[in-house]
Amino acid sequence: MPPLTTSRRVEFRDTDAAGIVHFSAFFFWMESAEHELLRTAGVAVIERNSAGIDASWPRVSASCDYLSAARFGDELDIAVTVDAVGRTSVTYGFAFSHHGVAVANGRVVAVRCLMHPGRKPEAVPVPEDIATRLARFSGG
Amino acid sequence: MPPLTTSRRVEFRDTDAAGIVHFSAFFFWMESAEHELLRTAGVAVIERNSAGIDASWPRVSASCDYLSAARFGDELDIAVTVDAVGRTSVTYGFAFSHHGVAVANGRVVAVRCLMHPGRKPEAVPVPEDIATRLARFSGG
Amino acid sequence: MPPLTTSRRVEFRDTDAAGIVHFSAFFFWMESAEHELLRTAGVAVIERNSAGIDASWPRVSASCDYLSAARFGDELDIAVTVDAVGRTSVTYGFAFSHHGVAVANGRVVAVRCLMHPGRKPEAVPVPEDIATRLARFSGG
Amino acid sequence: MPPLTTSRRVEFRDTDAAGIVHFSAFFFWMESAEHELLRTAGVAVIERNSAGIDASWPRVSASCDYLSAARFGDELDIAVTVDAVGRTSVTYGFAFSHHGVAVANGRVVAVRCLMHPGRKPEAVPVPEDIATRLARFSGG
Repeated sequence: MPPLTTSRRVEFRDTDAAGIVHFSAFFFWMESAEHELLRTAGVAVIERNSAGIDASWPRVSASCDYLSAARFGDELDIAVTVDAVGRTSVTYGFAFSHHGVAVANGRVVAVRCLMHPGRKPEAVPVPEDIATRLARFSGG
Repeated sequence: MPPLTTSRRVEFRDTDAAGIVHFSAFFFWMESAEHELLRTAGVAVIERNSAGIDASWPRVSASCDYLSAARFGDELDIAVTVDAVGRTSVTYGFAFSHHGVAVANGRVVAVRCLMHPGRKPEAVPVPEDIATRLARFSGG
Repeated sequence: MPPLTTSRRVEFRDTDAAGIVHFSAFFFWMESAEHELLRTAGVAVIERNSAGIDASWPRVSASCDYLSAARFGDELDIAVTVDAVGRTSVTYGFAFSHHGVAVANGRVVAVRCLMHPGRKPEAVPVPEDIATRLARFSGG
Repeated sequence: MPPLTTSRRVEFRDTDAAGIVHFSAFFFWMESAEHELLRTAGVAVIERNSAGIDASWPRVSASCDYLSAARFGDELDIAVTVDAVGRTSVTYGFAFSHHGVAVANGRVVAVRCLMHPGRKPEAVPVPEDIATRLARFSGG
């Protein structure tokens, strides 16, 4: 099974006065690509349990290495893989390219959490059903 | 009583590939200046009532006229006035300038609403105490 | 000829702590929808002239009226019209809806400008060819 | 010499529908804190050379570890250090805290580049004068 591939056109909002894409934009694109993977896998991004508490996926770590500049209007290809599923966490990998040239590589670790209103997010185990669905996108 | 005056340095995130401030940035600055006015007036931006429901101030209208370009690093002066207090709404005016040169004028209409989780915001009257506090910043 | 219609899924970046779409997001979406209209009309968003100067479309005015809240994951429909073509300006109208329910209406006035590096944008007439191409999207 | 310390109030734009700060906001804050350090050190963020080419500091790497959630209105303390000055690069470290509780730790590697218009950024050595000024903020 290949990783999920998606694409994203650079919008003007994503650029900065250096004339290129602002480095922050890749983090937004990673999150949206992760959500597209979750939807494709049939996993809810936010899931309300029977007690009315939302389970969601806050990040504990995010990083990006920038390899070449992207510019307004570029259509970037994004390959998303699930690099690891831990007890409470999922590690995603992202490879951005433009016409086959590598643009950036990113990595995000998200943790399954119950979002009690006004309290600290509580990490909980990734449900087995979800782990199985995500394993299909393994990059290994 | 003069309007509230505050200032804001243009950050790199606020610029775009045209080399100037992206037009969207002024809307963020208006919101933060509005919140600074509310704090100065002793009005909570978000206020939880006894039933655990938050009262807040969603916008029903926002607009901005752009008069001259601002650039990375510019320190903009912002004058904020309360231009009208209606039954459920507050209208704010914003004048942005740089070294005395007008940069932009904005206007926001916010409505006092109860934010019931998962439901449509419910407009409610502006409490008299809040109306009195805000009237001090009248631009008239 | 109908207006341009496009769509946009609400991303997590577009939401705020009130649980709904942040009002600023509509301005980003308007700009991207405007750019999609320009591409569809065969008009460059940024056009470098023979002297190496970029012609682009800075905004002189932007406004939005908010009619109902949108939430994470909603797929919004956007209808874009060219409401006026003046000597140097183009006025766009935007109608956002979700499953047929009106969400927001926006309006942007952009001015054709030469972007001399480090200088004030210089308004220039909208080329006749471009005015003709844009007139096809007239909302009237 | 202690690291540079600065602070930042969480704005509404920085929050998301999970009710907490969106993970992307820390990257914006890191960039602005880096720029504050540069200004304090007497180093221009963008420096135009005699040939009219801007030297600036694109990032080649950015990462953040999230330790606890921050919320709207929180005033975060940020400690910035220069962790390494290489031949063409500068590595910055960022420690975010709130009332003494660690919130996030970040790291950015920026490279001194000439920004030739329309071309790939060209990495150049960090001028010795700048390296000396930055070394004062060493975290070691």
